Amino acid sequence: MLSKKTVAAIRRFVEPYQVVKGKRFRLADFDPDDTGGLGSESKPRARDLLAHGVEWLAEAQDKLYAQNRWSVLLVFQAMDAAGKDGTIKHVTSGLNPQGCQVYSFKQPSAEELDHDFLWRATRCLPERGRIGIFNRSHYEEVLVVRVHQEILRGQQLPAKLVGRRIWDERLEDIAAYERHLARNGTVILKFFLNVSRKEQKRRFLERLDEPEKNWKFAAADVTERGHWDAYMAAYEAAIRATAARHAPWYVVPADNKWYTRLVVAAAIVDAMESLDLAYPTIDEAQRRELAAARATLAAEG
Amino acid sequence: MLSKKTVAAIRRFVEPYQVVKGKRFRLADFDPDDTGGLGSESKPRARDLLAHGVEWLAEAQDKLYAQNRWSVLLVFQAMDAAGKDGTIKHVTSGLNPQGCQVYSFKQPSAEELDHDFLWRATRCLPERGRIGIFNRSHYEEVLVVRVHQEILRGQQLPAKLVGRRIWDERLEDIAAYERHLARNGTVILKFFLNVSRKEQKRRFLERLDEPEKNWKFAAADVTERGHWDAYMAAYEAAIRATAARHAPWYVVPADNKWYTRLVVAAAIVDAMESLDLAYPTIDEAQRRELAAARATLAAEG
Repeated sequence: MLSKKTVAAIRRFVEPYQVVKGKRFRLADFDPDDTGGLGSESKPRARDLLAHGVEWLAEAQDKLYAQNRWSVLLVFQAMDAAGKDGTIKHVTSGLNPQGCQVYSFKQPSAEELDHDFLWRATRCLPERGRIGIFNRSHYEEVLVVRVHQEILRGQQLPAKLVGRRIWDERLEDIAAYERHLARNGTVILKFFLNVSRKEQKRRFLERLDEPEKNWKFAAADVTERGHWDAYMAAYEAAIRATAARHAPWYVVPADNKWYTRLVVAAAIVDAMESLDLAYPTIDEAQRRELAAARATLAAEG
Repeated sequence: MLSKKTVAAIRRFVEPYQVVKGKRFRLADFDPDDTGGLGSESKPRARDLLAHGVEWLAEAQDKLYAQNRWSVLLVFQAMDAAGKDGTIKHVTSGLNPQGCQVYSFKQPSAEELDHDFLWRATRCLPERGRIGIFNRSHYEEVLVVRVHQEILRGQQLPAKLVGRRIWDERLEDIAAYERHLARNGTVILKFFLNVSRKEQKRRFLERLDEPEKNWKFAAADVTERGHWDAYMAAYEAAIRATAARHAPWYVVPADNKWYTRLVVAAAIVDAMESLDLAYPTIDEAQRRELAAARATLAAEG
């Protein structure tokens, strides 16, 4: 159990970035460089807090697993170099891999394209008691596919189903899908790591200039950068249409990695804390069974 | 291609039973003994029509497969002894099994219960170009589970998610799910084989009295019969909430098997006819490629 004071302290790192109602959402209201008033002198303290959060998460995960009722789905979306992989690594590295699955969504396979666009996400959903992490997700269908409509043309859809309302329909379907999952016990948290165009450029140059970072760079990344405004518009539309109390978005400032990680960890702790996780208790009949088992074992001599 | 006259003739067997708007639906308005004005002297003609329909379906399936855009999902729900298995057998026996999958949904497995209630249906959805048949389906979750609420208690849901609105929520989720599938190219037809309580009794007695039909009988079937009214109420609620132009229900009279089969086949022909299925045509570039291939083969000597 976390103390009330700790919970309140965590909330302070979460609240400014949590979107539970999309209607009035504007991406421009969120500063990628925000660090919640903390200067870079706070980095060591932030690292400390993160370590504590990760430790708490490992305990919570154990109870989640034992209880086997809720599942947790963490969705990560971002532009290139926003720090998705690093954040996932730092936030989840204390977890028990047996109860935690990370799926990286690449280009869909032929089998996946032969189904509706949510089918492949469904196959990767976490079971009860587990934490599932989507590194990219079903949202790609209203992000990269929306920006590059030639991808849509490759999706084998019957022509008469591809109309002008297709993006609104897809967003509506995603919202209904997540509502259904939430009603059935999945806690859904969606993170948009909000990096600025300027900071992305700096990180790309770093990847080009430092040989040991070269592998992270692909020429296509620069092409995608050319579509920045279209991507931001697509993200804004997606968040507006799908932010909900049961499936909030977190627009996490991502120009400072130490702060990004802190906010993401805080959001997960905040959400899991509210589940009141506990080890299952046993009733009188089960207690008698255990006592009998103990007696049998002891009698073995 | 079917002639306009044939299409109109087929429509006459479909229209009276098709429900595309649930709001005013009442099960009591549908007579299980209806045979569309045909007497039993029409049985041979009905059998003939059915054979023609099945033949046409086999051709349509071939185009569906070649085109690889649409998929077709046929959902069958009914009380015991309504003739589900026999209808599926008769209507689909001319189809190419490579493009046609039948799934019989039994009690969910532990893995299935560890997911939302639509997860297991999703795994069995037909791919583009294929016909999928659900013998029982995701509707069991608002039928048998609604009638026997002890099943719900075994579904591992977090207690606070099980409220009084759960059946409305499930129906809402099913409706949204089917709308999503339809938008992505799945043609959904849902058949409720509407047998009367009286006819069910007659068929049960037949199963008990004829040794070669004994295997079809389970004592539990009679117990379920005791919940008849609760089942009818659950069916009515399900049809009201989920009938839609893009996912119609067909309330098929099921006291006369020959008529049941005719109506079901007619409904499938009617729906697939409207898809304007055709073999994919090839363009000039592909034509040249084919000519080149032919030349290469001929030159082999």
